Order: sequence, then C-alpha cells, then structure tokens
Amino acid sequence: MDYSKIALEKHKEWAGKLDIQSKAPIKTRDDLSTAYTPGVAAPCLEIQKDPKMSYVYTGRQNLVAVITDGSAVLGLGNIGAEAGMPVMEGKCALFKSLANVDAFPICLNTQDTDELVKIIAAMEPTFGGINLEDIAAPRCFEIEQRLQEIMDIPVFHDDQHGTAIVVCSALVNALKLTKKENPTIVINGAGAAGCAIATLILKLKLGNVIMCDSKGIVSKDRTDLTSGKLALVEVTNLENKTGKLADAMNGADVFIGVSKANTVSKEMVKSMNEKPIILAMANPVPEILPTDAIEAGAYIVGTGRSDFANQINNVLCFPGIFKGALQAQATCINDAMKEAAVYAIANLIPEEELRPDYVIVSALQEGVADVVAAAVKQAAIDSDVVRKWD
Amino acid sequence: MDYSKIALEKHKEWAGKLDIQSKAPIKTRDDLSTAYTPGVAAPCLEIQKDPKMSYVYTGRQNLVAVITDGSAVLGLGNIGAEAGMPVMEGKCALFKSLANVDAFPICLNTQDTDELVKIIAAMEPTFGGINLEDIAAPRCFEIEQRLQEIMDIPVFHDDQHGTAIVVCSALVNALKLTKKENPTIVINGAGAAGCAIATLILKLKLGNVIMCDSKGIVSKDRTDLTSGKLALVEVTNLENKTGKLADAMNGADVFIGVSKANTVSKEMVKSMNEKPIILAMANPVPEILPTDAIEAGAYIVGTGRSDFANQINNVLCFPGIFKGALQAQATCINDAMKEAAVYAIANLIPEEELRPDYVIVSALQEGVADVVAAAVKQAAIDSDVVRKWD
Repeated sequence: MDYSKIALEKHKEWAGKLDIQSKAPIKTRDDLSTAYTPGVAAPCLEIQKDPKMSYVYTGRQNLVAVITDGSAVLGLGNIGAEAGMPVMEGKCALFKSLANVDAFPICLNTQDTDELVKIIAAMEPTFGGINLEDIAAPRCFEIEQRLQEIMDIPVFHDDQHGTAIVVCSALVNALKLTKKENPTIVINGAGAAGCAIATLILKLKLGNVIMCDSKGIVSKDRTDLTSGKLALVEVTNLENKTGKLADAMNGADVFIGVSKANTVSKEMVKSMNEKPIILAMANPVPEILPTDAIEAGAYIVGTGRSDFANQINNVLCFPGIFKGALQAQATCINDAMKEAAVYAIANLIPEEELRPDYVIVSALQEGVADVVAAAVKQAAIDSDVVRKWD
Repeated sequence: MDYSKIALEKHKEWAGKLDIQSKAPIKTRDDLSTAYTPGVAAPCLEIQKDPKMSYVYTGRQNLVAVITDGSAVLGLGNIGAEAGMPVMEGKCALFKSLANVDAFPICLNTQDTDELVKIIAAMEPTFGGINLEDIAAPRCFEIEQRLQEIMDIPVFHDDQHGTAIVVCSALVNALKLTKKENPTIVINGAGAAGCAIATLILKLKLGNVIMCDSKGIVSKDRTDLTSGKLALVEVTNLENKTGKLADAMNGADVFIGVSKANTVSKEMVKSMNEKPIILAMANPVPEILPTDAIEAGAYIVGTGRSDFANQINNVLCFPGIFKGALQAQATCINDAMKEAAVYAIANLIPEEELRPDYVIVSALQEGVADVVAAAVKQAAIDSDVVRKWD
C-alpha cells in the first residue's frame, strides 16, 4: 500500500501532529495567580535555591527533546531542517502514545558539529533527556559523545543505539532458536546504525563480527576508513578477511543489513552456514526479499517492514528506554541500560513461543514501553548513574 | 492572599504545566504508516521541494517558542535558566488557554549575547514565532534586534513590547476620559519595559515623555547612560530638565511606573497637573498604593495587580498579537501591528463606558485574543510584512 497520498492529506489536516495543552486551568483570577504571577514565583525560588528541584516543579522530569539537523532523515538523506520536522513530530507522537513521555521536536538549521554541540548543550535546563535523530555519520558519533561528556542528562542517538538494541533483541532470540554458538555475523552498512550494531553485539558477546561497507569488507588493509570504522577494525574481522560482501557471507551464520535494496543475492544466502539468520533492514526495500531469502535456505528472516514477519523497529526501544532513564533520573544511557533493554525486549517472547517467524514482538504490542522502562530504570540504579538526592 | 503555598503544591501535582499530546492516532499499523514511516516521507519531500510548505505540513503554523536566559525573571532578577521555567511554562499555558496558540518553553543556560543570538536563530525551522521573555536590559535590546534582522519569523520581547502595548492601551483610554491633550508623561524605570513604553508613546504621539531611572531624570547632562537610554535622550525630555523623580512629576499629567515599590509619595501626586493619571506597575507592591494615590488627588489609577481596578497585564496582548502574526504568516511584528494591538485593546471598552476605574478590560475577559489577533493580522497584511506565496 502506498501511504504517500493519505499521509499528505492527514498531515495537512493535523496541521502539525502535536498539541501542547495546559494542565493548569486558566479560567479565574485565582487560576492565573497560581499558575502564573504572583504564585509562580514560589517554585521559581525553590529551583533557584536548588536547581535539582526543576525535576519536581517543571516538566523536564518527563520531557525529551527530539533533535535533528536534517542531514540524514529516514532514507531520504540531507533534506534540511524544515523537511525533517514531520519525522521528528512523528517520533514525539510515538513517545507520548507508547510511553506517555512528553517529547518536543527541534529542527536546527546548522550542520556544523561545534555549533550543534553548543546549541544542544545550552538547552539542558529545559529537558530531562536528548534524543538525537537523523544526524549523518560520522558527525553523529562526535556530537553524541561530546554532548554526553558535558551534559548531565541522557543523550541518545536513536539511529545508532535504538536500532542496535532492537537488532540485538531479535538476534538474541534467533540465536536461542538456532542454538548457534559463537556465530559469525556479517553487518553490511558501516554508517551510524551499522557501527552501533557491531559495537553492541561485541559488548554483549553475541558473536564475531565482520563489517562491510559499499567497498566491501572492512579490514586492516583498507586505507579509506572513517573514524567510526577505524574504531571497529581492531575488534572485528579477527581473521582479517578481505574481499566483497559475498566473500564475507561465505560460511557466515548471520547477515545484518543496514544498507541498500537488493544487495544480497540468493547465492550469497546459499553460501552461508546452516540455518542462516537474515536481518535485512534496508527501507523500504530490504537487502533481499524474505521470500527469496527463504527460498535460498534462510531459517529466520527479519526486515524493517511491518508487512513481513519479524519487524525490526526501534519503536520497540526508544519510548521505553527514555521512560526508564527519566524515571530513574539517569544522567546518561550507559551500556548496562542498553543491555537491559535488549533482554527486556527479547524476553517479551517466552522461549517456548519462539518460532522462525516470531523472534521479535510487534512494534505496537501493548505494554512494551513499560517493561523496557522498568528494566532500564533498574539498570540505571544498579550501575549508579542516577541523579543524587540527599 | 498569599499564593506561594498553593502554587508550590499545584506545581508539584502538575509535574510541569504542559502536556504534549499527539493529534495523530497511533493504534494500528496503518496509523504508524501514516504518521510515521513510510508515509511521513511524503510531507518531508514536499517541504524539501519548498521549505514554505513547513507552514502547511508541520506545527510551526501555530507554534511559538517562549525563550529565556533566566536573567530577569519576574521581579526576582537573575535566578538562572532552570528557575525561570515555571514562568515560561505559565506563559505557554496562557498562549494555549487564551488564544489556542501552541507554545513551548525553552530555558537556555548561557547569558552571552552572541551565543543567545546564534542558538535562537538556529531554531527558526521549528517555530512560527519567537517570544523572548525575561531577558535583562540592555542585552535584550541587542538580542531582539539582531534576531529580527536575521530571522524570517516574528521575534518579540514581551517584557518590552507586550508591556508597552497594554500600558498604551490604558493610557489612550485615560487620556480620552480626561480629555488631556499633549500631556507630559513621566516614566520611572528605564529598563526593558520603560524604554519600550517611551518609544511606543512617542510613535503613537500620545504626549511628551520624561524618563527617570534610579539616579533621577534622564537628561543630556548625564554621562552614565546605557544604550537604551542614550537612544531615548534625544527624543524625550525636550526641555532638558534635570533633578529627581519629584522634579519630573511636578506639573506632569501622567506617571508610569515600572520601577520599585513605594517610590512615589502623596506629595509627588499632589504636585502634578489636574486629573493626574497614575499607572504604578511595580510588582507585587506598586510605586504608590491606589488608595494613597486617590487620596492625593489622582483621577485614574492602574497597577499590575488583579486585586485593584485597572490591571495593566500583558496577558491582554501577547496571546492575540502572536495569534494575529501567525495567522498572517507575518515575518516580524512591526510598529503598525503594535499600534493595531494598542487600539484593539483600548477599544474593547466603548467610549461611553469608560470610567476612572475602568480604562482597561480584565486580563481574562473572553475573546480579547481574537479581537487583537484580527486587528494585528490586518495590520500585517496592510503593511506587507507577510510571507509571500505565489
């Protein structure tokens, strides 16, 4: 189904997908004196005495910024700040609908790393967390890292970590089902998502990774590697294979695609180890269609699409991970919290219900965000990255 | 009545005064495909082709940012970004409740003029207008001017112009009632509000102005004048009077106070011309209490307080002026629009109903924002400062 026409009509009718309502009644003089002057001076003064009280008296306790520079929006590329807004509003709508977290979209008209860091850091008093969105690699790595160093609230680039978490959830279940141990995992696409997936797979010790980009296998022999890939070349591809994607897939157990339509052939799938796992997430057309992959012998196939089985969608992750981080008043989203999210999502399917076409729950299954939030909150507390109140 | 206790309780209960709801339903797979991927790509691409389409497909058509650096919050002073938030949220609640305009509060943790200009300008793609709030003078003058030069949406420092507009509305009616012509108007307080009031009075040719600050009359003999005052010393105090506030008020027709509690004595009021007009807006305690002013012979008294007659409250102005500017897709809020707002508010009281204790309508009178918006929208169109669609 083509959603373009109805989406255009609906977006025009909505005139913006978000509605900012007042929780405070403003009907009478007393209302005005309580929500506004003179009464409002009282919470202001409490916060002035202790800025932490902003978590008690203002909305930041449950408020996330969804921020982009419009440089890598969906698969559309660098379409600019104005054009990124419908996606950011959509993300905020999901935060509210799925996790009851308030979220506000901000599109910035600069793509300069230093400026983005300065601008976003200056907004810290307003928010409880920062969801970076659709910022191009490799700039996104530096922006996230520098912001998290200087900010005392969680900074999370969802295209990296949200994707990585949901991929790992599906992978955990797929490995359980196939009983594969120490699998070889080929990741095609070494941008923001690909690098984050590789990093998280290694952190969780799910297998060995071989990265590929448009030029082929990422190996130590390559002289054209950007920062994200350089950081990974030391810990992936331990046999230092060289060649093309087909060479990487020969004998591998898992293929993870965050690349382009139709980059994987049936022959490549046939060359893999037994019970191949294929997570082909190029949007809207995957690296290989599920029907073709299964014909070629794939045992488990997932894609980014809702019209095939096993949809790998970071909608499963970001509402809950931020909800948990906000509830814990976490100052960052660390590896322990990401790991907690991975297993919380994976474990939504009891082991006895796992099937090749059901290794990950539906994106809209009710209650996902609360389960993820509880796990993430506990991990934040256990790893001691929460705001201190004495 | 002391609103501190109830305001603290209520602010804790509200946990933030704003609630960001989704207008788009997110219940089914079709919902997700319309409001988010893949459908959302369609409005993105339309906006990429023509960024003006962001006024059709996103919320900016009805969205204002309320932005502060926390440097001059209410009468509390430089209390910092976190502590300014309850006021900003309150303002946003008023935008929605009184004018159905969406507004979002942003508190920035820098007070550097260049940085503030850069940060706010970068947010242009997100909003339809910028309401600057509670930024200290003289920095606020430069920030507003520089932003309006580089931004293509209205930038409006409400503490300056919102206050000036409502004061002028009350003044217009007070002068009508007292039949004063070419009055001498003393303004005590030469910060953001005082300078804006003086400027607007002169633009509207309502009378001659003498400014006073904490050191006395602002005259050409003074060597300590900041930029805001220097710009005004050439066009005010044409007789180049010197001395204290008492000297300025001697023989004057109107006193306008945006200064401090109890700075005006009964003797000063007695020294004024007949039928003195006193607009004493220091908060929470005015320059002179209405009872004292009237005992001393004042004919019309207004304050900033809701428990006395003639409350001068910029709640009467900002929701409607932004609503009109947004409806017109104005690229600024110019003098013609401010003038339209002044007379729209003043004319809410028919001439025959004017009384000394009723020269301005109640802050919460229904329908004010729509009347102001209609006048402001028309003025924007007539003065040709609206976005061009061909």
